[in-house]
Amino acid sequence: MKVYNFSAGPSMLPEEVKLEAQKDFVDYKGSGMSVTEMSHRSKWYDEIHTEALSLIRELMNVPADYDVLFVQGGASQQFAAVPLNLLVNGKADYIVTGNFAGKAAKEAVKYGDCVVAASSKDKNFTYIPEGVKFRDGIDYVHITQNNTIFGTRYTDRTYPVANCPIVSDMSSMILSEEVDVSKYGLIYAGAQKNIAPAGLTIVIVRKDLVGNEKPYCPTMLSYKTQADADSLYNTPPCFTIYMAGLVFKYLKKLGGVKEMQKINEYKAKLLYDFIDSSSFYTNSVNPADRSLMNVPFVAPSDELNAKFVKEAEKAGLVSIKGHKLVGGMRASIYNAMPVEGVKSLIEFMKKFETENK
Amino acid sequence: MKVYNFSAGPSMLPEEVKLEAQKDFVDYKGSGMSVTEMSHRSKWYDEIHTEALSLIRELMNVPADYDVLFVQGGASQQFAAVPLNLLVNGKADYIVTGNFAGKAAKEAVKYGDCVVAASSKDKNFTYIPEGVKFRDGIDYVHITQNNTIFGTRYTDRTYPVANCPIVSDMSSMILSEEVDVSKYGLIYAGAQKNIAPAGLTIVIVRKDLVGNEKPYCPTMLSYKTQADADSLYNTPPCFTIYMAGLVFKYLKKLGGVKEMQKINEYKAKLLYDFIDSSSFYTNSVNPADRSLMNVPFVAPSDELNAKFVKEAEKAGLVSIKGHKLVGGMRASIYNAMPVEGVKSLIEFMKKFETENK
Repeated sequence: MKVYNFSAGPSMLPEEVKLEAQKDFVDYKGSGMSVTEMSHRSKWYDEIHTEALSLIRELMNVPADYDVLFVQGGASQQFAAVPLNLLVNGKADYIVTGNFAGKAAKEAVKYGDCVVAASSKDKNFTYIPEGVKFRDGIDYVHITQNNTIFGTRYTDRTYPVANCPIVSDMSSMILSEEVDVSKYGLIYAGAQKNIAPAGLTIVIVRKDLVGNEKPYCPTMLSYKTQADADSLYNTPPCFTIYMAGLVFKYLKKLGGVKEMQKINEYKAKLLYDFIDSSSFYTNSVNPADRSLMNVPFVAPSDELNAKFVKEAEKAGLVSIKGHKLVGGMRASIYNAMPVEGVKSLIEFMKKFETENK
Repeated sequence: MKVYNFSAGPSMLPEEVKLEAQKDFVDYKGSGMSVTEMSHRSKWYDEIHTEALSLIRELMNVPADYDVLFVQGGASQQFAAVPLNLLVNGKADYIVTGNFAGKAAKEAVKYGDCVVAASSKDKNFTYIPEGVKFRDGIDYVHITQNNTIFGTRYTDRTYPVANCPIVSDMSSMILSEEVDVSKYGLIYAGAQKNIAPAGLTIVIVRKDLVGNEKPYCPTMLSYKTQADADSLYNTPPCFTIYMAGLVFKYLKKLGGVKEMQKINEYKAKLLYDFIDSSSFYTNSVNPADRSLMNVPFVAPSDELNAKFVKEAEKAGLVSIKGHKLVGGMRASIYNAMPVEGVKSLIEFMKKFETENK
C-alpha cells in the first residue's frame, strides 16, 4: 500500500534516495562490498565521507571558519557536549520553548551556572518568546530552533539578540529553510528527520569555540577530538553518512535549500490554511511562530482524535498521532514529504470532518 | 568481482543478511516504509527492537540479572562510560594488551585512580599477561578480550582472577566463541565487526552495577538512563539494530555461538597452520594467545609486504593491509568470513610465496 509517513522522526526519505541505496546495497558501485561492511579507512568510504562533508558545507553555505562534524548519540548527547565544550566562563542562558529545550537546559545545569532566561511554558509552549534579556558574561545562549512536539519555530523576529555565541538545536528543521550559519556559534542536529536514518548527528561549530572542553569531558564528546580527526577518530556510522550524502545530492539537484524552503512553505500553508478555515480542527500555535515542519492539530474531542488516528492509518496516513504532551494529531511534513502527501491528508481531514461533524 | 573483505572493521556481513535487507529496503514487510524511515515508537520498529534484544540474550545466554543495552558511540565512548558509571570507590585496574586497551586505560585516568596493572608492551603486545595481581578495593578490572591490531585474545588460562567485577571490551570477538557472561560485571562491544554496520554498541551489564554514575556523567552515557528506557531513551540507530537482528537470526539458524565457534576455530587453524608451515610468512604472536579473529602476518621484507597487499587486492582479497603499529598484513576472519575466503587467501599466499621466494 502507498503510505505517507507523518512521523516526527525517524521520518520519510526521498523515494529516489531509497531506490538508489537499495540498488547499491549488496555491491556498491562494483566494489563487491556493501557500504554496511566496508572499512572506514578504505578509499571507497573515504570518498563517501569527504563528499558528504563537502555537500553539507555547500548546501548550508558554511563559512570556512566553522568545523562540520559527524558524531553519534543524537541531540540528547549534544545537550551534554555543548556545556562540556563551551562553558569557559561557566555560565549560559537557555530559552525553553518545549520538551527538548527543557531537557537541554536541565542537562546543562550539571556543568555550570546555566539558567532558563525565558520560557513559553505559561501557554503550553504555543509561542516563541520575544526580546529576551540575557545575563552578562555568559558563554552562550541556547535555543531550540524548531519545536517538534509543540509545532513552533524561531524566525528573524524572535531570533535572540545577545553579545555571545548562539547555540541552536536544529534537529527538526535543518536544511528545510535557509539559515545564515555565521549568526551562530554552534548548530547541532540529529539526522533522523531531514537528513538520514537515525544514528548520525551533525555539529557545525565556529573554530574558535573548539578546544576548551572540561578535563572530564569524554574524549568522544570533545569537539576537538572530532575536528582534528575529520570525524574519523573512531569508526563513524558509515552507512548512515552514506545515506546522508545521497540526501544531500538529491537536495542539491532539487535546487538547494532555497528551493526546498519554497516547497516547505507551500506545503505548510496548504495545511494551516485548511485548518484555519475549518471549524472542526484547531491548531493553537501563535500564527507567527508556526513551524514549517510539525503541524499539531486537534479535532473537537478526545474520542474523535483517537478515531482520526485510527482511520488515518487505515487510509495510509501513518504515525500521525500527536505527542502525549499535546494530544490530538501532529503532521510532520519534513523535506521528504511530497506535496501530494499533504494534499492527501487534507482530503482525508475533509472527509473525516464531514462524517463526524 | 567476487570479493573477500578482510577488513578489521567494519567488516563482512553474511550474504543472506544483505540480500534480505536489500529486498525489504524500500518496503519493509508490506509496511509501505523503509526501516530507515520508520518511527522508533511504531509497532513495526518495536517488534524489531524487542526481538533483537531478546535474540542476543538467547545467543549469549545472558542471565536475568543483566541488562542488555543498545547505545551509540562505539567502544571509544565506553572507555569513558565505564569509569563514569562504575567508579564507586574511585579505583580500577587495567590490563593493557594493545592499542585500544591503552586508550581505555588512558581515558579512565580522567575519572579516578586508574592504573595499568600489567602490560604486554615489552614484547609489542604479542602475548597476554598471566597471573596478574590487582590492588585491593578496586571497582573493576578492565581487559580487552581480543586485540584487533596485534592478534591476541584471552583464554581461560589468562582470564584474570580478581575479587571485583571484570569489565571486558569484546568488540572484535563478541559472538565468535562461547563466553560465560556470569563471569563478567560488564561486557561492551562495537557492533561493526561481528554484528552489524557501524553505529551500534552493545553493553551487557550486571544490574547491581547500574545506577552509580557520577553527577557529571552525561545522561546519554548513564547505563541507568538506557536500562530504564529499554534503550529507547532517545531515537536509537534503528536500521543498524534491524541489521543486528538479522545477523542474530542468521547465527541462531546456524546453530548458535557454539557452532560458530567451531567454524571460527577451523578457519583460524587453517590459516595459522599454513603460516607456521611456511618459511616465508611469520606470525609472531605467542601461539597460546593467538586470536581467532585477527591474524597478522608478515612476508620477509617491507617491499614484499607492500607488493602482497597490492596484488591481493587485485585478486579480490581486500583490506588486508596490517595496522601501521604492526605492519605487514592482517587477515580479519570474523564470523561472516566464509571458509572459502580463508582458503582463497591461503591459495593466494602460496602462489605469492612461489613467485617471490
